[in-house]
Amino acid sequence: GTPFDPTNDPHRRYNPLLGEWVLVSPHRAKRPWQGASEEPNNEQKPSYDSTCYLCPTNTRVNGEVNPDYKGTFVFQNDFAALKQDTEQASEKKGLFQFETEQGCSRVICFSPDHSKTLPELSDEERVDVVNTWKAQTAELGEIYRWVQVFENKGSMMGCSNPHPHGQVWAQQHVPTDPAKKVVQLQQYFGENGTPMLLDYAEQEVAKQERVVCQNDDWVVVVPYWAAWPFETLLLPRFDVQSMHMLSDSQSLSLAKIIGEITAKYDNLFETSFPYSMGWHSAPFDSEAHPEWTLHAHFFPPLLRSASVRKFMVGYEMMAEAQRDLTPEQAADRLKALSTVHYKKREN
Amino acid sequence: GTPFDPTNDPHRRYNPLLGEWVLVSPHRAKRPWQGASEEPNNEQKPSYDSTCYLCPTNTRVNGEVNPDYKGTFVFQNDFAALKQDTEQASEKKGLFQFETEQGCSRVICFSPDHSKTLPELSDEERVDVVNTWKAQTAELGEIYRWVQVFENKGSMMGCSNPHPHGQVWAQQHVPTDPAKKVVQLQQYFGENGTPMLLDYAEQEVAKQERVVCQNDDWVVVVPYWAAWPFETLLLPRFDVQSMHMLSDSQSLSLAKIIGEITAKYDNLFETSFPYSMGWHSAPFDSEAHPEWTLHAHFFPPLLRSASVRKFMVGYEMMAEAQRDLTPEQAADRLKALSTVHYKKREN
Ligand SMILES: O=P(O)(O)O[C@H]1O[C@H](CO)[C@@H](O)[C@H](O)[C@H]1O
Ligand SMILES: O=P(O)(O)O[C@H]1O[C@H](CO)[C@@H](O)[C@H](O)[C@H]1O
Repeated sequence: GTPFDPTNDPHRRYNPLLGEWVLVSPHRAKRPWQGASEEPNNEQKPSYDSTCYLCPTNTRVNGEVNPDYKGTFVFQNDFAALKQDTEQASEKKGLFQFETEQGCSRVICFSPDHSKTLPELSDEERVDVVNTWKAQTAELGEIYRWVQVFENKGSMMGCSNPHPHGQVWAQQHVPTDPAKKVVQLQQYFGENGTPMLLDYAEQEVAKQERVVCQNDDWVVVVPYWAAWPFETLLLPRFDVQSMHMLSDSQSLSLAKIIGEITAKYDNLFETSFPYSMGWHSAPFDSEAHPEWTLHAHFFPPLLRSASVRKFMVGYEMMAEAQRDLTPEQAADRLKALSTVHYKKREN
Repeated sequence: GTPFDPTNDPHRRYNPLLGEWVLVSPHRAKRPWQGASEEPNNEQKPSYDSTCYLCPTNTRVNGEVNPDYKGTFVFQNDFAALKQDTEQASEKKGLFQFETEQGCSRVICFSPDHSKTLPELSDEERVDVVNTWKAQTAELGEIYRWVQVFENKGSMMGCSNPHPHGQVWAQQHVPTDPAKKVVQLQQYFGENGTPMLLDYAEQEVAKQERVVCQNDDWVVVVPYWAAWPFETLLLPRFDVQSMHMLSDSQSLSLAKIIGEITAKYDNLFETSFPYSMGWHSAPFDSEAHPEWTLHAHFFPPLLRSASVRKFMVGYEMMAEAQRDLTPEQAADRLKALSTVHYKKREN
């Protein structure tokens, strides 16, 4: 037979962060698509929307009035999935195991401007967002073992309000996926004496096969084991375990690279690119975590255009994640794109 | 404080099949929904559609003509994610691990009638589907270690053609989620000497808290650890490791209970209920698998109505699955529904 060609032949790649595999079927990108098409979201929004419950001075469902905020604005989620006062109980034997969970859930408005998204803010405004993430992580890490900072962007990703915002959920127990990472990262650190993700960042920077953008402090790659078509991993190029440990200059360089990757995303299909993104700082369990490296994932669903997404369904739900183009092909496309947002170019 | 109330207070439940947890936030079902609404799919389709590439006698993209089939019809996927002749290669060290994958992917048409879905077929027609799953599992299990039978139903689940059909993908390696199950089921069998899922079925039948429907051979439950709002698990009440081992009478009772659960699903919101479903037979690795029990999962996305779905996004992608009503509440609602399909009742 013809020798194995990773740009054309089915293969599985190993995700060493989770200890799981992903099926890569690059030749499949050629199939015609006759399924669902999504509504691209390209309407121009106003800077202030009187019906938006996140805009300054508006009243929320519970009757509270938002302040006339100028930068970021944080409040307790009015319909939180976690509560701080849940009475403790658990059952840890047999087939019906549970444990109660204490925690909290907050909304983080990125800007008072209803019409903006992360790539459309200035570096200074994005530094404000980074500083808010840092402050929330520090504060909630004092109380809870796990602090999950994330953003759902776009209605395709279950976001119910287009006002630029993210969330932070904090809880007593380390959740499923982060718990897998603790195991994988500790095993690597035990064997190699270095943090896996720092080694990985260095090797990717040397190879330049999957790097989308980089600066002196940070690098964005389509990871070798990416599951979503244009998934990326944002890694520091220095040893740091948690969001709240970033210096001012590291926060600025982070604000800059977030501006770059999110502008490239919007430029890919000239649409406000939907994704879920989130930060993984080390657990706050009063252990040292030398094995851990702070990092962020971007999981965007779009595959072919502003209206055709990847579905992680039947095979993926039952067996394992599957992708239709190689991570290298995705990285090449993202790398080639401008970091100037397409809406700014149009003027 | 008030004692823990599982119908109202946040807690985590353990999925012993995968060794993972799910966050249950029952009080959250009360929040208003302002996000995306899906297009319910209630149009009446014709029995034959000349533009459908799955209907009898029509021509497919690759030029092949479908036979004038009367029952089920199986063919090789024209855009398969797996190929049988991939040249073998692998790298199993370091941070860039891969292995090539050989396999195949087939489409299984359930019926020549374009307008029908599983709950609208007769028991005899569904027996034909079960027999086709059995034959495919037996045939592909001779060649590959894993045989994944599944169905994506509805455009919300990435299904690109409404003609009633499912798929079977078979491959060399046991994929990620089934591999976790092997570990979990073997551990339970080692400790208890009985298959976990048979014990579980028996305990659920005794409790009757999460049973949706049952007959002498099979039981459908909303599992204690369900992640999707109306997720169910279809279990045999007898010891069986693989699809192809079912007797004729077990195939008939299976056809009947599939008719019941899928009719209840359609009746819940009086819509053709989208889901991904799939079968897990034991791996075909020439080992005995006394720990394994054949079972099927139904993963349906709808939450509140025919147009409002659950999104497994930010928190769920970064941390762990989260649900907004208890499995018991979901089971009560499904249990109360008729097994007569709403379209038949309307006459
Ligand atoms: O093969 P289909 O039905 O065209 O495609 C669908 O099912 C596949 C298997 O779950 C997925 O990989 C695709 O993303 C989905 O759109
Ligand atoms: O909290 P939101 O933005 O209303 O809700 C969204 O994000 C949550 C956290 O990822 C998910 O549980 C919801 O399914 C989703 O719709």
